[in-house]
Parts: sequence; structure tokens; C-alpha cells
Amino acid sequence: MPEKEVAVTFLPMEKTVYVLEETRMLEAIAGAGMTLEQPCGGEGTCGKCRVRVREGACEPTLVDDDTFSPKEIQEGWRLACQAVVVGPSVVEIPESSLLDSRHKILIHAKDGSVSVADPAIAKHYVELSPPDRGHDAADLVRLEQAAGTCDADLEMLRTLPGRLRENRFQGTAVVAEGKLIDFEPGNTESESFAVAVDVGTTTLAAMLLDLTTGTERAVAARLNPQTSFGDDVLSRIHHARENPRGLGELHEAIIGAIDEMVGELVEAAGIRRERIYEIAVAGNTTMQQLFCRIDTHSLGEVPFVAATARRISAAAGELGLHLHPRAKVYVMPVVGGFVGGDTVAGILATRLAENRGPSMLVDIGTNGEIVLFAHGKLTAASTAAGPAFEGARISQGMRGSTGAIEKVVVDDALRTNVIGNVSPIGLCGSALIDLAAELLRHGILGSDGRLRAGDELPGDLLPDLRRRVVVHKNQPAFVLASKGESGSNRRILVTQRDFRELQLATGAIRAGELILLKRAGLRPTDLERVLIAGGFGNFIRRSNAQRIGLLPHEIPRSRIRYQGNTALAGARLAALSQTARRHAEKLAVQTEHVDLSHDIEFQNAFADAMIFPEDGG
Amino acid sequence: MPEKEVAVTFLPMEKTVYVLEETRMLEAIAGAGMTLEQPCGGEGTCGKCRVRVREGACEPTLVDDDTFSPKEIQEGWRLACQAVVVGPSVVEIPESSLLDSRHKILIHAKDGSVSVADPAIAKHYVELSPPDRGHDAADLVRLEQAAGTCDADLEMLRTLPGRLRENRFQGTAVVAEGKLIDFEPGNTESESFAVAVDVGTTTLAAMLLDLTTGTERAVAARLNPQTSFGDDVLSRIHHARENPRGLGELHEAIIGAIDEMVGELVEAAGIRRERIYEIAVAGNTTMQQLFCRIDTHSLGEVPFVAATARRISAAAGELGLHLHPRAKVYVMPVVGGFVGGDTVAGILATRLAENRGPSMLVDIGTNGEIVLFAHGKLTAASTAAGPAFEGARISQGMRGSTGAIEKVVVDDALRTNVIGNVSPIGLCGSALIDLAAELLRHGILGSDGRLRAGDELPGDLLPDLRRRVVVHKNQPAFVLASKGESGSNRRILVTQRDFRELQLATGAIRAGELILLKRAGLRPTDLERVLIAGGFGNFIRRSNAQRIGLLPHEIPRSRIRYQGNTALAGARLAALSQTARRHAEKLAVQTEHVDLSHDIEFQNAFADAMIFPEDGG
Repeated sequence: MPEKEVAVTFLPMEKTVYVLEETRMLEAIAGAGMTLEQPCGGEGTCGKCRVRVREGACEPTLVDDDTFSPKEIQEGWRLACQAVVVGPSVVEIPESSLLDSRHKILIHAKDGSVSVADPAIAKHYVELSPPDRGHDAADLVRLEQAAGTCDADLEMLRTLPGRLRENRFQGTAVVAEGKLIDFEPGNTESESFAVAVDVGTTTLAAMLLDLTTGTERAVAARLNPQTSFGDDVLSRIHHARENPRGLGELHEAIIGAIDEMVGELVEAAGIRRERIYEIAVAGNTTMQQLFCRIDTHSLGEVPFVAATARRISAAAGELGLHLHPRAKVYVMPVVGGFVGGDTVAGILATRLAENRGPSMLVDIGTNGEIVLFAHGKLTAASTAAGPAFEGARISQGMRGSTGAIEKVVVDDALRTNVIGNVSPIGLCGSALIDLAAELLRHGILGSDGRLRAGDELPGDLLPDLRRRVVVHKNQPAFVLASKGESGSNRRILVTQRDFRELQLATGAIRAGELILLKRAGLRPTDLERVLIAGGFGNFIRRSNAQRIGLLPHEIPRSRIRYQGNTALAGARLAALSQTARRHAEKLAVQTEHVDLSHDIEFQNAFADAMIFPEDGG
Repeated sequence: MPEKEVAVTFLPMEKTVYVLEETRMLEAIAGAGMTLEQPCGGEGTCGKCRVRVREGACEPTLVDDDTFSPKEIQEGWRLACQAVVVGPSVVEIPESSLLDSRHKILIHAKDGSVSVADPAIAKHYVELSPPDRGHDAADLVRLEQAAGTCDADLEMLRTLPGRLRENRFQGTAVVAEGKLIDFEPGNTESESFAVAVDVGTTTLAAMLLDLTTGTERAVAARLNPQTSFGDDVLSRIHHARENPRGLGELHEAIIGAIDEMVGELVEAAGIRRERIYEIAVAGNTTMQQLFCRIDTHSLGEVPFVAATARRISAAAGELGLHLHPRAKVYVMPVVGGFVGGDTVAGILATRLAENRGPSMLVDIGTNGEIVLFAHGKLTAASTAAGPAFEGARISQGMRGSTGAIEKVVVDDALRTNVIGNVSPIGLCGSALIDLAAELLRHGILGSDGRLRAGDELPGDLLPDLRRRVVVHKNQPAFVLASKGESGSNRRILVTQRDFRELQLATGAIRAGELILLKRAGLRPTDLERVLIAGGFGNFIRRSNAQRIGLLPHEIPRSRIRYQGNTALAGARLAALSQTARRHAEKLAVQTEHVDLSHDIEFQNAFADAMIFPEDGG
């Protein structure tokens, strides 16, 4: 039966999540969309993931006792990697514990040098001496002497002389990548903003950034309205190709949504739209091209060719976005094929290429993207997992929204967790993974993916599990919730076909992982780090993902780390730092794209990978 | 009486000028708008100014005998600096003798290195392998691999995938300053053109350049139609300020005229407008701002401030020019105040800053611009000479067009040369200079600028001169042509007031020259070179310009050199070479602008300079 979940509220962000008791604190934090510093991988040795549990603190572990003073322990300080949720809690997360520190960011170069953020937008308040006999420097040169080298487009040059004189040569020069884009009356230096956007196939996420401090001022998220034209990228490419207005419709849908999100952001932060001078965008190749209204035709045909792999610079106005009239757009470079700007953003944000040992970044979604860093080299592949992880093509699957069973745990009985604390109406991808892992552990699911029934079931099976194995349309099925427990007045079933879908999705990703490893002459056990990217990644249980082979089961769980929304984190870095952009552009060029669709070993690897591991880690 | 002039036709350009017999060949060539190589300054020692006089050759000089073989002498080879026109002639000018060589230009860097022309426009015909399994590079990357690094604007990126596929991945990439601006079907590498324009206050000159060879394909010139809004820059600035539509009118007038000239150029060369990818523009500060439609308000008020001193890059379409749809505009950087892009172009084209000794560039016009290069430093000043040199504010003055007396010579009598070989209807600036010099030599004009009459005239004065001194409206005047000789049915007179105007104009320029020299601690005799720029400069006699003090009379005439239209020559270099542009941008920054209007010594120098030299060189 569904277990009652408890509320955990995080401060100062005031985010609340509902989790089952005994959930690990790190997992609850990940569920709230945050990622903590944990250079030791959650082993309790680095002491970085400090949180203060103000209400509902669990007993300290021995590691906590070693890390904190008795006074601190009493105040509720714990290491998040050690703590578990023991009841309704209020947890304070110091900024210093967040991986994605909100302070002025530091860019760590590979040579060890560190530079502070250097956004492409700079503001300089100036009080120029007006021209006078003996001081006849040209207007732009006069400004340049006070505000640093700057160039200006014709449009700006045409109005500059008037603007300077109207404001008696006092005001704020706004410079974008060395080009003057405005001269504002008064001192507006403190009002300089950018927006970072993750354009996901399913979800859009945007973040308003204060460029003077590097801090996040507001966030917004919504469903990508393009989903009304098709769930996955191929259906949208098809729509753009088959309809004369298709490309325009898809473009306008996404621009309209982002423009509305910008409206939410400026309202939440209490700022003016005109003070946003830049938008940095990360998405997969298709999403980025649709955002830019670039023909996607050739992304719909083998061998899936992008229009460009380089970063795209454009004017926000040209795209129909309403920001500052001369605001800039920065679109992330892509690796190639479907391995897009979101993956490059992920490599950038996770500093994957700065690891010492072999490391892998896995973004689990309809398209799975896998990046391997080994022997100083980056290789990346995209693999079509299909929408099973998003809950689609699963009999009673649904997205991870209210009413979705999102977690399944088996101890003395099967227990589930439902999003929004309501009666369940379906299950989402993370629950499907949990269930498959548990059924594998309890001998209900075979490594070949076949549901066992009747005599095939283990003799010592928990009664609660045994009674849930039923026959549905002549096929074995598993009951997650009875008709009475369900919010939809029908039982929630997971069918044999559903597990086959999961096998296909998991096999595609695992095969991609194995092909990249093989090309580098490595085995899964050689991986020192596996980084999980993407919003969905935050919701899966690492041990269960390992049990079904979605993540390498051959390595200790501590080597696997949640990284949060790395596309958004990378877009944020690009908005804040030109150095980060240049770095991303290098990473995109350095990363070799492995086209799995014509890799002769992929089909074999895929077939092998569809077999669940015999015995999980 | 006006002397009959003879025709001199130059090959291969097929230009014909009419000059008096005994005119020096170099002068006739200058009159045709060309400038020869003469590193020795016309001393006959360098042997560079070779021409072949195919009809009407004069006797060879001793210098010719030393330079050429007897066979060459017989074929008509002469040094232009030695030859004189002895009758109707046909003269062949080898390209190697032209200062402004029409061959692929070489850029000489100061360190002695030489690079071939590197235009901002590059074309690359490519035959790309279409995408295929294992060859899935993005379109722009695929193109980049074949055509070199290129970037693309959003507009271009949007159409690139379609363009490539329509043309089966074969065609010509057009790259402007590293940015892809077109992908043309077929191989159009040989069709790459640019236009260089000199936007003069009075005259517009344009040249069509073949970017594949660096050769000039056609030239066009016409009156600047802005003259209908005022003769000089201040009257146009006034028009722009006082009329709501004024700036737009002036801008459209100039753009319309240039667009029509482009029409003439493409017709003459038999090419398509769409194959012109760039236009490089040089003009004074006001002309450049009006060309760009940049507010000129602050150029009309002390201390005369430009909007920018940096080069301006824009889109030709943005300015209303009809070239290739994504053609670029390059506008020369300016020094400051009224010392504009035409002067920078002149410094660039004459290589003024590569001279070893102190050198000066003088552009004689309504605004005189003077640049001094000394001790490795460039200083420049603009001085308001007024329109006397253009024939304006002179009783019977006119521009140098058909019917204008353009030359005055006195030997046994006064002889004049009339443009177009018709009866004279007025005189232009060069004739006024000639006349003043001759009257100074013959004691009719005093060094104080006063016309002598009656008893004051020298006793041994030529009878032809004596009879031309008359009294007109109670003031002395000089008759250049009698009523019977004139084509306007009234005598052509030069009045005392006309000589006063000339004194003011000459004094302004000479004062500018002297101030720059004084600031550098130099005297006129220290000048190793004086370079005469501008169309008008080609028509003045150096010795006469020296006699009246317009050019330093203290130095040998051979140190003075005609340079032709250096603004157009500089614009041409900018169109052909990015190295030249960067060099021009450096020169503009390096050149110190001396604002004469507030130089405390200028007024004294001006008063002194208005006195004609006591004894000319």
C-alpha cells in the first residue's frame, strides 16, 4: 500500500519535497533539483555536503561526530551523504555546500589558473568631460577612453551623439562582447541581467542571473509547448518538413513560451525586461535549431546532419524575444548529430574533462546522451532510448507529475511514493526502474526480462509480492496499486510489454555506454566517476539503475553522482563568462561524435545489453 | 589670347587631355588623373617613369640617352619627367610606371615584409562529399573543412542546409571577414568585385575592382548631389540640423548617386550588381557621417566633434545600397574633427609614414588638410581655406569644367588654356594661382596682395600685361580675356577682391603647414617631400603654387610630388586588403589631430602667411 510521505523543506530556497521516511537526505535534496558538493562521492570523507537540519534531525553518525563539534551536532549540522529523513524536516543548505555555487563563479582553467566571471555584457557608468576647445575627441573615442575599448553598430552610432548630449555626457555604457549596445541615462551598473535557458524536448527551464554578482534571481519552468506537435524530436522534424508553416509554428511556440517565462522571471525579481541584455541557450541539436528557426530537414534523415556545430550568435529581437532592444543570444555549440548544446553544457558544467581517471556523463531521457572522458579524450554518443523513461509507451505510464507513482521500495511489503501525496493514477519512469530492480532481486523478473508466474515464482517469495503477480490479457502482469488504492478507479498494472519497453530503453543506453568504453579500451570497472545529468536523473535511485544495468552495475554506487540540470548549469556559465564560452566551444570541437546508428558493433551490444545483469551491485 | 591646345591620348586607358604645347609630360599625365612612380622626385635619376610616346615624341634628353637603348629611343621610350608635349601625341603608359599599380597589389609593411592583397571578401568553390553514414559533420563544419574557418549569421544559417542540398553540395562559398555571406551555385570564384568610393564634398569618384586580380575594371565620377543643399560641409550640417528631414535628404542624395554610379560601373564592366560584395568608402568626417546617416549636429559646433574616429562596418543593404544582398560597407577611420577618412586614406596610399625624412601631405580644397610626418610621428590639421580654389567667391570663378580657363602662362605675352577647347566663360582655381604667381613675378601684384596700377607698374612691363591692368568699379583689376575672346560676351576680369580671397585661402593652408612644422621644431627647408593630394592638386603648377606660398617656396620643386586622388587610392587599398585596413586603423589612431581653431599661434601665422613670398622658388 502507498506509504505516507513526509515533507522536507529546504532553506533559504523554501523548496519542499515529499519523500518516504528513511530516504537519504542527498536523495531528497536531489529531488528538490539541487546538487551538493561531494568530491568524495558521498563516502563521508570530504565533509563538503554540510547541511543544518533545523527540524527533524536524525541521529548523528560516527562520521558526523568526526566532522562536527558537539555544539554543531546539537544545532543540527549533518553531512547530507550520511543523513536520512526521519520525519517532517526543515533543512538549511549553506550556499557553500551547493555544487552550483550561487556566488560569483570562478572558472577553473585546466592549467590551474582561476579567473572570475567575465560576462559578455559589461556596464560602465561614466561622467565624461563634454567636448571643449582642445578636447575634441570623437564621441565613441571619448566613451572608449572611460569605458574601455568598444565598437558600435551603425544603428547605435546614429543615436550616440544625441544620447550623449541629452544626458550631458553622463550615463551608463552597455557593452556586449566589446560592442556598445546602449548608453543609458544615470547609473544603471547594478541593473545588468541575463537569462540562461535549457530548451528541453519536454521541459523548458529558465534562470534569471544578476550579472553584477553572478547570483540566480529567479527560476521558471514549463512544458515545452512544442509537445503539442509531437513528443520526440523526430516527430517535430517531421512536422516542420511536412507543413509549409511547420518550422515557423515550432519556432514561435518555443519563443513564445520563453518570452512568457522571461515575463515570470522579471516579475519574480522585480526588474525590467529591458535590463536583460543576453540570453544563453542550451538544448539538443533539434531544439536549438528550432529555437533559431533553422531548417531541421537534414536532422530527420540518415546520417542526421546539423546546420552548424559552432555556437550561434544572434540578436534577441531577430528571434522575436522581448528583452533589451539590442540584447544578444548565445546558443551553445553542438558536438554533432543529436549530441547537442545541452551535452556540451553538461561537459562544461560538470568539468568532466578535468577528472583524472576515466569518467562518464550520462543524460537519461528519450534520447540518451553519453559522454566518456578517458585518456584525455572526449567521445560522445546519442542513443534513442525511446520515451519509456518519460512514462510514455508504458501501459499506465505518465510523466513525473502529480498522481504518478515515482518510487517503489520493497522491504516486508511493497511500498510506493506518489507525487503530490495523492492517490496514484499511473507510474513514471523512476518507479518503473525501481520496480524492475526489485522484481529482479525477488526473482519475479528474469534477467531475460520475462515476468515469472505461478510455479516459476520462488518459493520463499513475500506474500505481498506473490499476490500482485496476475495474468492480464493472457500475459503476466504486476499490480502496483489495486483498484481501491488507485485514484483512477482501476488497478495500476505493469505488463510484460512494459518491461520489454524498459529493456529496450535500458539496453540502448547501456549499449552506448559499452561501445564508448570499448572504443577507449576500457571496461565499466575502469570508470572512476559516472555523472548523472538531466532532471530525470535526479529522481532515479542509483542502486536500482545499476541493478537493471542502466548505469554500470560493476562499480560501487559511490562512484555515481547526481549532477542536476547540467544543461541549465552550462547555459548559466555561458551567460556569466566568456571564458566558459570559449571553453565550451573548444570542448565541442574536441569531443568526437560516435554515430551509433552505423556502428557495426552496436546492434550486438544492444542485444546483449537488453539482458538485465544477473546480479546487481 | 587663348592659345590652341593639343590633344594627348594615353594608352591603354584611352584617356585624352588637351594641353598647351611645351607642357611637361608628367603634368599632362597628372591632368589625366594618373600619377607615375617617381621615387627620385622627377630628377631623372631613378628611371621609373618610363612612357612610350608612339606619336608626337619630343627629342630625347641626355637623361633619356643614358636610360634607354637607341632602339628604345627610336620606339618612342622617354622618361615622363624629362619629356614635353610638342604636338598632338599618343602615349603608352606601362602599368609598371603607374604609382597606383593596377596589378595585384603588394602591401609593404614597415618591417620590410611584403604580403599579397588579402581582401576581406574571399570566394571558395567547393565540391563537398554529401553527408553519408560515418560522415555526419554539420553543414557549416563540412563547408569550413573545405573553405577554411567561417562563421555565419543566423540569416545565412537558416538557408544554408537548403542551399547546399539544392546544389548537391557543390558551389561557391562567399566569405566576408571570415563570415559566410552566400553559397552560390556553380563556380563563381572569378566573379568577385568591390567598389572603392571617394565621397568628396564636391565630387564623387568610384572605382570597380576585380578582387581576384586587384585590377580596376571601371571608374565613374559625378558631382556630389548634396551640393544642392550647400557648397561646403558647414552649410550641409546646417541643413541637417535645421530640417527634420534634412539628415535623411542628404543621406539619400549621396546613396542614390553612389547607387547610380554602381549602375554605371557594372554596365561598363559587364558584370552583375550581385557580384559586388563590398564597398570601401573614404571621405571627410562630415561626408562619411552623412553617407552613414549619422547625426552631424556636433560637427557644426565648436570644437567640431565626430561621432566616431574608428572604422565603421555596416551592411550595404542597411544603407540602401543595391549590391549583393549581404554586401559589406567599410568606412575609413578618421583622425578627428574635420580630418577625416579621406586624409587617412591619403596617408595610407602615399605611404607618408614610410618616408625617412620629414614629409608632408597637402590636400588642397575648400577644407585644406595637412599631414606632417616627422620624427616618426604623424600630426594633421584641417584648415578652412574657403572655396576660392574651387572657383567660388571669385567674381568670374567657376569649377574646373568646360569653358574654364585652367592655366595661365606668361612668356612674351599672356596665354591661357581653356578646358574643353572652347571660348572661356570664367576661370578656375588653378588659373587663379597661375595668374597670381605670374603677376607677382612681373611686379603687377605686390607681396601684400595689392594690385598695382598706373605709375606703380614696373617700367619694363610687357605691353600685353600692361594693357590688361584696368580699373573696375574704382578698383584695379586684371583682364584675362577680352569681351571678344570670351564665350560669355563679357570680358573675364580678376579683381582686387579675388586676389584677397586667394590670399585668405593660401594663407590658411600655409599657416597650417607652418604650425605643424613649428610644433615639430622644423622649418620648411627640412621637408624632404611634399605630396600633393586630391583631384585639384593634379591641376596646379607646382612652381606657381610655390610662388604664392601655397606650397613651401623654400624647397626645390622636385621635392613636390603629385599623388593623384589619394582618397580613392586609399579606399581601393582598403577594398583589396585587410592588412591595409588594419594599417589605416593604426595610422588614424597614431595621427595626432592639431585643432588649429584654438591654436593660439594660428591667428598670427595666418596673418603672416597671407603675405605672398617676396621672391618665389
